[in-house]
Amino acid sequence: MAEESTAMAERSADNTIYVGKKDTMAYVLAVVTQMNQGMNEVVIKARGKAISRAVDVAEIVKNKFSTDARIESIITSTEEVESDEGKSVKVSAIEIRVVK
Amino acid sequence: MAEESTAMAERSADNTIYVGKKDTMAYVLAVVTQMNQGMNEVVIKARGKAISRAVDVAEIVKNKFSTDARIESIITSTEEVESDEGKSVKVSAIEIRVVK
Repeated sequence: MAEESTAMAERSADNTIYVGKKDTMAYVLAVVTQMNQGMNEVVIKARGKAISRAVDVAEIVKNKFSTDARIESIITSTEEVESDEGKSVKVSAIEIRVVK
Repeated sequence: MAEESTAMAERSADNTIYVGKKDTMAYVLAVVTQMNQGMNEVVIKARGKAISRAVDVAEIVKNKFSTDARIESIITSTEEVESDEGKSVKVSAIEIRVVK
């Protein structure tokens, strides 16, 4: 039972795609690959300026690559990260849940 | 009756804040002003790279300026706009509904 829930936690962590500074299509490919491997739910996460790219990724997946995929939920939050100078700065974050 | 629904349509259009290239705080102020004038629902809209700023605006309003405000829903879509060269290009859009 404990083993089972550990496996589940690992699986759920695996289905997260962190969107950063790479080309949008790199992340689209990552999401589509996850879904083609049988993952029915993928979570796209991003912070700061990458949030716009995360929305692009979700929209492209939904409209072009996986027409049976839909955006289940979108939540935003504020996270505290450490700046290069060691100061704590607040940054917005987004979490887009795509399911098929 | 007809007059009443016209007034309602105008009111509902008034509560939309379009986020563009201005400073984030300009939009925060616009949302907070709307809410202080008795508007219980404000819709924050943005396209393309301004999407990240729209999320910042919603998060700052929620956390700093109006603690009774919450994000009711977030939806994304793909819109077609005309580029400077007259070509049709697709751009992601976001609509964040903030209520108090």
